[in-house]
Amino acid sequence: MTPGPHITAALLSVGDELALGQTLDTNSRWLAERLFDLGFRTTEHATVDDDPERIAGAMTRLAAANDLVICTGGLGPTADDLTRHALARALAGAPAGPTPDLVADEDALEAVRAWFDRRPGGMPEQNAVQAMRPPGATCLANPHGTAPGLYARDDASACDLFCLPGPPREMRPMFEREIAARLAGHAGTVTRARYLLTIGLGESAVAEQLGTLMDRGREDAGEVLVGTTASRGVVTCRLRATAADNNTAAGMLDEVEAQIRERLPAVIFDRRDPDPSAGSDHDLSDALPRAVLEVLRARHEKIAVVESCTGGGLGAELTSVPGSSDVFFGGWITYENAAKVEMVGVPPDAFSAVGAVSRECAQAMAAGGLDRAREMDRAVAHAIAITGIAGPAGGGDDKPAGTVWIARASADGTGEARRFLFRGGRAAVREWSSRAALAILRLHLIGESMTLLAETHD
Amino acid sequence: MTPGPHITAALLSVGDELALGQTLDTNSRWLAERLFDLGFRTTEHATVDDDPERIAGAMTRLAAANDLVICTGGLGPTADDLTRHALARALAGAPAGPTPDLVADEDALEAVRAWFDRRPGGMPEQNAVQAMRPPGATCLANPHGTAPGLYARDDASACDLFCLPGPPREMRPMFEREIAARLAGHAGTVTRARYLLTIGLGESAVAEQLGTLMDRGREDAGEVLVGTTASRGVVTCRLRATAADNNTAAGMLDEVEAQIRERLPAVIFDRRDPDPSAGSDHDLSDALPRAVLEVLRARHEKIAVVESCTGGGLGAELTSVPGSSDVFFGGWITYENAAKVEMVGVPPDAFSAVGAVSRECAQAMAAGGLDRAREMDRAVAHAIAITGIAGPAGGGDDKPAGTVWIARASADGTGEARRFLFRGGRAAVREWSSRAALAILRLHLIGESMTLLAETHD
Repeated sequence: MTPGPHITAALLSVGDELALGQTLDTNSRWLAERLFDLGFRTTEHATVDDDPERIAGAMTRLAAANDLVICTGGLGPTADDLTRHALARALAGAPAGPTPDLVADEDALEAVRAWFDRRPGGMPEQNAVQAMRPPGATCLANPHGTAPGLYARDDASACDLFCLPGPPREMRPMFEREIAARLAGHAGTVTRARYLLTIGLGESAVAEQLGTLMDRGREDAGEVLVGTTASRGVVTCRLRATAADNNTAAGMLDEVEAQIRERLPAVIFDRRDPDPSAGSDHDLSDALPRAVLEVLRARHEKIAVVESCTGGGLGAELTSVPGSSDVFFGGWITYENAAKVEMVGVPPDAFSAVGAVSRECAQAMAAGGLDRAREMDRAVAHAIAITGIAGPAGGGDDKPAGTVWIARASADGTGEARRFLFRGGRAAVREWSSRAALAILRLHLIGESMTLLAETHD
Repeated sequence: MTPGPHITAALLSVGDELALGQTLDTNSRWLAERLFDLGFRTTEHATVDDDPERIAGAMTRLAAANDLVICTGGLGPTADDLTRHALARALAGAPAGPTPDLVADEDALEAVRAWFDRRPGGMPEQNAVQAMRPPGATCLANPHGTAPGLYARDDASACDLFCLPGPPREMRPMFEREIAARLAGHAGTVTRARYLLTIGLGESAVAEQLGTLMDRGREDAGEVLVGTTASRGVVTCRLRATAADNNTAAGMLDEVEAQIRERLPAVIFDRRDPDPSAGSDHDLSDALPRAVLEVLRARHEKIAVVESCTGGGLGAELTSVPGSSDVFFGGWITYENAAKVEMVGVPPDAFSAVGAVSRECAQAMAAGGLDRAREMDRAVAHAIAITGIAGPAGGGDDKPAGTVWIARASADGTGEARRFLFRGGRAAVREWSSRAALAILRLHLIGESMTLLAETHD
C-alpha cells in the first residue's frame, strides 16, 4: 500500500482495563501522530473490552472502511488475551463464529524461549501461546518483550491488519520497524516528516506566522504539508513531504524549513527528523530542558534555580533529562518568605514594601541564588528565580492569581525580570512558569530577545 | 433506565484533533470510571473525526448495541462542530442522509446569550448555532461554558444518547448533574460508590489482601463489588453498592469498608464518596500530598525537603496542593555533591567513603536540612531527604539504577533511612521516590510501621 493523504487508517485498542477506564490509552494518540507523519489520515480509534467477538467485529468493520488497521493489546499469555483469536475470526470472515485453529509459529516460539532463557526458570509453559498465529498471518519479532506482533492482509477488504503489543516500550519500536519502515519505502514514493519545536509563542500565533504554509491542499499540489501540535508550552510544526525519493523529500523539507525559520526567528529550539530505521520513540516531552542544557554544556556553564510558586518544578524539569548533573548545580525552594530571606538573602523589608510577587523580590532571589551558588561552584553562571501566585487563592486586583515574576541573574553581570499572567488554574500556572523560565534562559544564551507568550508589560 | 452490571454503555469522542492524535482523549477514561461507579459496563470507546456521516454512523452503531451512549465534543460554534447534525441524522435513522432541519431551543439560546452578557461585546452571532437541537432532543444546561449538551431517547434502539461538550471542565459537571444524578436515583434502586485510597503496597498485593471481596459475581448476589485501579503509586479500592435506597447502600459500603480496613491496616490514607450532586470532578491526583499536608496541619508542624535525584519533584508535588504554604517551608535541591556539603552540611568525606547514594548521606541530608530549616522557622518539625540513582546511567553492580535512599529527620529526635529499588526508567524512579517519601512521612505521623512497595533490606 502506498500511503497518501487520502489513504485512511483506523486504530483499535483492546483491553478491559482500557474500556473500563482503569488505564488511559496513550497508544492511539501516538500512533495517529506517526501515521500523520507517514501520510495517512486516521479516521477512527476504537477501544473494546476483552471479548473476542467484539474485537473481531471491530477488526472486520474497521478493515472494511480503511486501508490500514493497527490493533494494540491483547497479545499476552493469559486467558484474557484474545487478539490472536479475534484476528483469526476476522480473517475467516466470521467474527461471531468459533475461533479457527491457530498454528504454532516455530520462529516466534524460538524467540519467546530465547527471551526467557535470559531469566531464571526459563519460559513458563503458558507463554507458548504467544507464538500461536492465525493461519493467514505472519509473526513480527519483538526485541523488547515476549509478545510477537501479527500481520495479515485481509483480501476481502483489501486492508492490511497489524496487531502490536500494548506496552508502549514494545509497541513503538515494533511500529517503527515493521510498519513505518515498510510504508516509508513503498511503491515508488517516500514520505518523510520533520518536526520544528518552538517555545515562546502560542499555537495560534505560530499558525498565523505560518500562514498559507498550513493550507490543507498543499499536499495534493505536491508541496510540503505543515501542521502544528501543542503540548506543555511547546508548539511543534510538523512537516510532511511525499516525493519520488528520499533526497527529493529531504530537499523539499529543507526549503520549507528555511521559510518557516524566516517567519519564526528565535523561537525554534530543536529539530527532529523521525527516523523509522532508528526505532526511536520520538518522545518530545523533555525537548525544551534538553535543548537548554545542551547550550549550557557547550558553554561549560552551570545553572542554579530559586523557586517559590513552582516549589521545585523547574529543578525537576531540568533534572528529568539524563545526564543533567554536569550543568545543573541545584537550588533553593524558597516557599516561605523566611526561606527567601535566610536562604538567598532577600531583604526582609521587601515583603511589606513590594510583596513577594514583585520585580524586586524576583531579582533579589536570582541575584542571591547566583552569589551563593558561585561561592560553592565557580562554574555556576546563571540563576533563574520564579515567584508568583499559583492560585486559585492569594490573588488580588493588582496581582491576580496567575501573576508570576521570573528573573535571571548571570555571572557576566547581566540580568532581567519579566512579568507573566498565566491562565488555566494552579497546575497550568506552575507548569507554564517553568517553561517560561527555560525560554528566558534560552533566549539569553542564544542572544535573542522577544516578548513571550503570556508576558505582560505595564 | 436502571443501571446494573449487565447494562452496557459506549463512549464516542468526536474531533479531528483527537482522531489525528494532536490531542489526547482523557474524557473517555474518566467517563468509563464514573460509569463503573454507577453500575454500567462500558464495552467500547470510539473516536471519529469531524465527519457528520462517520459521527452519525458511530452513534447508530453504538446505540444499537448498548443501553447508553455518551458522546463528547463537536458542540462548539464553528463549521467543524457537527455533533448536533450527526445526532439529528442518527435519530432520523439515516446517518448518510441529509441532516434534518434543526430547531432553535429558546431556553438554550437565552443561556448562551446570558453567558456572553458577562463579556464585552455580547454574543457573537455564530454562537447562536449552539442553541440549535435535533427535533427529538432536549438541551442540557452548561453553567461552565457556552455549549449546551443534548439528550435524546432513540426509540429504534431503546438507547439513551447524551452529547456533552469536549472540555473536561464543562463535560464533567454536566455528566454529574445530568447523567449521574438521574441514573443514581432511578427506578427504585440506587448505586453508590466509595473510593479507599492506599499507598505503600502494589496493586497485586492489595488485590491479594482483598481476596474474595474482588469476586466479579458478588454484585449479582446483591453484595458490594470491589475493584482496584492504580495511578502514580496510589492504589484505589473502588466499592460499588446497589440497593433499594441510599441508607442501605451506605450501610453496605460501611460494612465492606470495615472489612477492607481490617485487611489493609496502615495503607489507607483517604476515603472519597463521589457525590453526583456536588458536581465535583473527583480528581484524585493530589490526594496523597493533600493527606500528608492535612496531618501536618492538624499537628501545627511544617516540613522541609532536601532533594538530590528528584531535583525538586517532591517539593513540586507538595506544593501542587493549594494552600500548602502553611505547612511546607521549602527546601534545598542538592543535586551536585558540593551543594550537599555547602547547603546542608553533608561531610565532604562521605562521598569517597560511602558515596552520595547511601544511608549515611541520606541521613546527613535530612538532619542537616532539619537543623537549617529550624534555625529559620521553629515550626519545621520534619525534613525528608532523597538521594538515588535515577538512571539510566550511573548505576553499578552494588547500586543499580533505581537505587534510592530516603531519610527522615524529625525535631522529636527520631529519624529513619530506607532503601528502595525502583524500576521503570528515570521518570518512574523519580516519581516513585517522591511517593515513597510521602508514604514514609505519613507512616511516621500516624504512628504506623510497615515495609513499603519496592523497599529493600540487606
